[in-house]
Amino acid sequence: MALTTIIMAQDKRPFTIDDLIPGGKTYYDNVPEYAYYAWWGDQLVKLDVETVATVDAKGKTKELFSIQTINSILRSANMPAVRNLLYAKFPYAGKTIVELPSGGSQVMVDWSAKTVAATIKTAPNAKNTDICYESGQAAYTVAHNLYVSRAGGQSDEATRIDAAVSLDGSLDLVYGESVHRNEFGIKKGTFWSPKGRLLAFYRMDQSMVTTYPQVDVSARVAELVPDKYPMAGMTSHKVTVGVYDTQTLRTIYLDAGDPTDRYFTNIAWSPDEKSIYMIELNRDQNHAQLVQYDATSGKKVAVLFDERNGKYVEPMHPIQFLPWDDTKFIYLSRKDGYLHIYLYNTKGEQLAQLTKGEWEVINMVGFNTKTKSIVYTSNAIHPLQQNIFSVDMRGRITGLDNGEGWHTVQLSQSGTMMVDTYSSPTVARNIELTPTQGKGKPVRLLTAAEPWDRFRVPEMKVGSLKAADGVTDVYYRLILPTDFDPSKRYPAVIYVYGGPHAHNIDASRHWGVRGWDIWMAQQGYVMFCLDNRGSEHRGLAFEQATFRQLGVEEMKDQMKGVEYLKSLPYVDADRIGVHGWSFGGFMTTSLMTTYPETFKVGVAGGPVIDWKYYEVMYGERYMDTPQSNPEGYAKTSLLGKAGNLKGRLLVIYGGNDNTCVPQHTLSFIRACIDADTYPDLFTYPGDEHNMMGTDRIHLHNKITQYFNDYLK
Amino acid sequence: MALTTIIMAQDKRPFTIDDLIPGGKTYYDNVPEYAYYAWWGDQLVKLDVETVATVDAKGKTKELFSIQTINSILRSANMPAVRNLLYAKFPYAGKTIVELPSGGSQVMVDWSAKTVAATIKTAPNAKNTDICYESGQAAYTVAHNLYVSRAGGQSDEATRIDAAVSLDGSLDLVYGESVHRNEFGIKKGTFWSPKGRLLAFYRMDQSMVTTYPQVDVSARVAELVPDKYPMAGMTSHKVTVGVYDTQTLRTIYLDAGDPTDRYFTNIAWSPDEKSIYMIELNRDQNHAQLVQYDATSGKKVAVLFDERNGKYVEPMHPIQFLPWDDTKFIYLSRKDGYLHIYLYNTKGEQLAQLTKGEWEVINMVGFNTKTKSIVYTSNAIHPLQQNIFSVDMRGRITGLDNGEGWHTVQLSQSGTMMVDTYSSPTVARNIELTPTQGKGKPVRLLTAAEPWDRFRVPEMKVGSLKAADGVTDVYYRLILPTDFDPSKRYPAVIYVYGGPHAHNIDASRHWGVRGWDIWMAQQGYVMFCLDNRGSEHRGLAFEQATFRQLGVEEMKDQMKGVEYLKSLPYVDADRIGVHGWSFGGFMTTSLMTTYPETFKVGVAGGPVIDWKYYEVMYGERYMDTPQSNPEGYAKTSLLGKAGNLKGRLLVIYGGNDNTCVPQHTLSFIRACIDADTYPDLFTYPGDEHNMMGTDRIHLHNKITQYFNDYLK
Repeated sequence: MALTTIIMAQDKRPFTIDDLIPGGKTYYDNVPEYAYYAWWGDQLVKLDVETVATVDAKGKTKELFSIQTINSILRSANMPAVRNLLYAKFPYAGKTIVELPSGGSQVMVDWSAKTVAATIKTAPNAKNTDICYESGQAAYTVAHNLYVSRAGGQSDEATRIDAAVSLDGSLDLVYGESVHRNEFGIKKGTFWSPKGRLLAFYRMDQSMVTTYPQVDVSARVAELVPDKYPMAGMTSHKVTVGVYDTQTLRTIYLDAGDPTDRYFTNIAWSPDEKSIYMIELNRDQNHAQLVQYDATSGKKVAVLFDERNGKYVEPMHPIQFLPWDDTKFIYLSRKDGYLHIYLYNTKGEQLAQLTKGEWEVINMVGFNTKTKSIVYTSNAIHPLQQNIFSVDMRGRITGLDNGEGWHTVQLSQSGTMMVDTYSSPTVARNIELTPTQGKGKPVRLLTAAEPWDRFRVPEMKVGSLKAADGVTDVYYRLILPTDFDPSKRYPAVIYVYGGPHAHNIDASRHWGVRGWDIWMAQQGYVMFCLDNRGSEHRGLAFEQATFRQLGVEEMKDQMKGVEYLKSLPYVDADRIGVHGWSFGGFMTTSLMTTYPETFKVGVAGGPVIDWKYYEVMYGERYMDTPQSNPEGYAKTSLLGKAGNLKGRLLVIYGGNDNTCVPQHTLSFIRACIDADTYPDLFTYPGDEHNMMGTDRIHLHNKITQYFNDYLK
Repeated sequence: MALTTIIMAQDKRPFTIDDLIPGGKTYYDNVPEYAYYAWWGDQLVKLDVETVATVDAKGKTKELFSIQTINSILRSANMPAVRNLLYAKFPYAGKTIVELPSGGSQVMVDWSAKTVAATIKTAPNAKNTDICYESGQAAYTVAHNLYVSRAGGQSDEATRIDAAVSLDGSLDLVYGESVHRNEFGIKKGTFWSPKGRLLAFYRMDQSMVTTYPQVDVSARVAELVPDKYPMAGMTSHKVTVGVYDTQTLRTIYLDAGDPTDRYFTNIAWSPDEKSIYMIELNRDQNHAQLVQYDATSGKKVAVLFDERNGKYVEPMHPIQFLPWDDTKFIYLSRKDGYLHIYLYNTKGEQLAQLTKGEWEVINMVGFNTKTKSIVYTSNAIHPLQQNIFSVDMRGRITGLDNGEGWHTVQLSQSGTMMVDTYSSPTVARNIELTPTQGKGKPVRLLTAAEPWDRFRVPEMKVGSLKAADGVTDVYYRLILPTDFDPSKRYPAVIYVYGGPHAHNIDASRHWGVRGWDIWMAQQGYVMFCLDNRGSEHRGLAFEQATFRQLGVEEMKDQMKGVEYLKSLPYVDADRIGVHGWSFGGFMTTSLMTTYPETFKVGVAGGPVIDWKYYEVMYGERYMDTPQSNPEGYAKTSLLGKAGNLKGRLLVIYGGNDNTCVPQHTLSFIRACIDADTYPDLFTYPGDEHNMMGTDRIHLHNKITQYFNDYLK
């Protein structure tokens, strides 16, 4: 039996780096099969390259239309053909209209009437396009100005005139784009009202913000690319919220008062589109208010409620009105220590806490309007899992999936059906069509084979340790070297992120392992990863343990991981390395300079070196300002620790990183030179915070080479 | 006997890197003793920290004054004390006046009368200060504007008004500074007339030149530091020459015509200060003209002569009038293939070629007005030497030194006496006082002990090989590892520069060896260096062999060196490395990517990567423009060779290098990433083209570490 296994292992082939890292030539040959689905009201639709088919409750498909049909309709309208149907959308339940991208526009094709029902055109260089399906208009930006396209119908390019909502947009004054550096859940800058008449939008004045000089070295002569970047403790931008009326063509601004040092987040419309709700936060981020405005006059109507926290409040979720009751909405808060769903009325009164427990709601998915319940995901079953649940207005929770692994949901319009896509450590990817109510059973739509079955996959283990506080469970993932021999001693590399809003270990396919970890295991390394206190989905206390001293508690937890690693007989305690990116680059550099006797080799990518160089919104949430927390900034700054460096540390940064600006890495290099220590350095000119495509392959070859040079 | 040597060697200690590299803590403990001398007319003066003494013809010293005397005079005048007398100057022969720097001014102290005779004050932030001893005025610049201080005497800070020669100075419009990027021998931007009434100055309009965005990462938020940098083939700056009259306070400009794509070089005054002479050069640098202007009207008086060359003319020496005949001047030219001295009259007629031969004048020192002869240095005796000669108006040459080694000269006012400072491979430093005429013998003023006698110095050899052309002799320096064992096989590292205007091997102390070479020899490397065709002092054909394809012939010569190295039984041909800086960084990267099978490890510092990123003046001289020589630029660009990289190559650059701008290195790194090759990188944030002080120690530790990691 043992013999059989060995023979089988020998038949399997080793991975190439291209098999494992996004950007690799063969990467997509080795991810589990996927299938594209969309909802057309409550009708599930399967999208293929050349056909679109309906899927019935038993999973049976029936062709709805083909790409030939669509392209023949487009050809008749003198419009460019589409190449595939994978991006088809069905915005109008009941109408035989499919939305497809076509030559820079969005085209609405009626496959039944065989006509182009409408074309939503924007300027050729439009960004941030936001379509309103109610009116058929699109909001978009060009060069930081905001425009609204003419309403629906076919328009003639020569005569169309889009409304310019703003005229004075510039790098200093930005309209219709995401603000506050995408913190507080903000991902966009335009918000159509439910009926489509009004458009709320962000306006950001950042003229008073310091300019970070990025340089484009790919130009004939290197060129300045100025970027507005507000650093911790320095002057921040000022945001206001406008409301554009597509009928009067007039804009009013919400009367929110002086925007200095305030965050306007989580914009939501009332269903009658008469009110706009925002969660307003002070710069210190410890006091949030839900405020209601009159959308026509801009006047403040009411402050519905306040939320305060001694450390910070982090509103991430706009309120959502119940589809069956315009007087009630749900609100997600961690005010009891975990992210849970609360029911409020429009007077601001809390009617109920719908979910509760020492676990977190991960994703608010939507509503089942038939059962008047909310569909959401949480890790209630196990901290490493994400499962699908519904909760009704009385707080009765129903599990909607198999209770294992990591599930994501596409909910139908009424919320009565869902597509449940999931994996688990032993399940590559399954997709099921499942009713969210009643006794209907899931219908399997796809069972993806495990693409790594043909490779020599190293052994992976997940377990928990006690954090440095002696109480909290933290989870780790351990990967043994491929073709592990327990009598040998191997070098070990810790992959670390460690910051908020992220985790590395979960119950998804292969425990969420990263391709590079597998690659390194194949090179003969023990790979280790631990989600320390401060990481996501474990509640507020777990996250806030790091407040005002990022890295300090996180490192203590990582050292618990090192203790465990060193206890393993096959780990060579003299050859321990560490690698991480971004917050993980900060952790890597912190570990190398705080525990120089422990870590022989490190590779830090795009690191934070001193939080004073990081931006206001994220940085001050966790660190307050350099003025109000000088000891915390001093304690966590790696500039003062540069002289502690003993091992080999390679620091890598994107030449145009606009998240952790190059000043971090370059200041550290300067500090090391001044302290007579010897880090190594690499950069990816032209890249931002992360390397993509073939650069990502190069990067991981580079990182691997470094460990092979100095740790192997 | 062999035993004795070994015992002696064991008594000697190894070098530390601080002993060998400028910037090291003990560097100045280990350079040969030096002594400071100045001429006071024809009276030699010895400068010490606390005393100044006269030196008679037999070398006997007699104290002239002490620092106590000077500081007591300064104290009486309420002026700050001086700390040492090493920078004393004696601008007025016969007058008991010493010039000393004192609190940002230059002060003229009469040590006999015990008074402050004059103070030459400039603004506190003055740069480019240029004192006219005839008038006691100083020209200086502040923020790119040119000012002239009030004439002599003590001035009261509150009431002094300096004349502003320009008002509109800026980064775009620069007054009174060196122009044309210090090429063509230009080192300054102001030129006092012989009698001191007029001030010729450069004005450079560089508004049309592209701005290179340097970034200062040491600021709280990184800041843009714009630098005007004209790149090969692109729009260049426009220079004009003004003449400011200190009596009328008016400025005229020389009527030289459209300055577009022209170089105005080698400004010289006629002794009567009525004329200004310039050598004017076209952008193609193949046609020079000596042009005379009326200094009062600015009108062009005459073109005295033209010089043309199929490749390039490089005027580096202003004409110099004979002190005894205002109608004649000397001119230095390579028009016969070697740099020699010619005698002309003011009609532009060549009267004589005073020096001739297959060797070069290295330095035009001055005149002996008694014998009516010229004192100069040349390598006539041996290509590796610099010796002192005089030549009279009939071309009769007299050797003035011992005919060995490497000599430099300080000539007395009349030119009848000189201080000859020299070293040779076996002489650390001797200083002699020598008459330049008659039969007087040199008097030894200083015999410096060899400071390396207490160290274990590796064996050094110098020899010649045939260049790749099979004909030309090129010189190399070979250093054996410290404690060399001929039965062992050692790794070898080539240090290379290879560009024009420089050499590495000469007959000075220890053959001009670099400290790092000794350091590497001590680490167990064979060190090799070869001055290839293209380097200095070997004549025009030797230099111009590289025309329009920099690096190509140079590399062929270096490969002859490699051939020789490989023939040595103690060199391991599989472990050959290369290191160089600037042009040498270009050579290193070229060699690593052109002969990837030969070189295992390289370290390239501040490299040129593509000549299109280098500046107009130097770059186009050797390469013409990218437009007129596309094949030459393509052939020598390392961007296209990035894919050839096989060995380990570390590229290092100054973060604010304004000579070889960071775009060179960063473009190469980008090209390597795109070509899937793996160079290493390091930078010195805030440093320019060269690392100084402790950064230089760090740099050489870094370079050494790299070879130790990968070549040892």
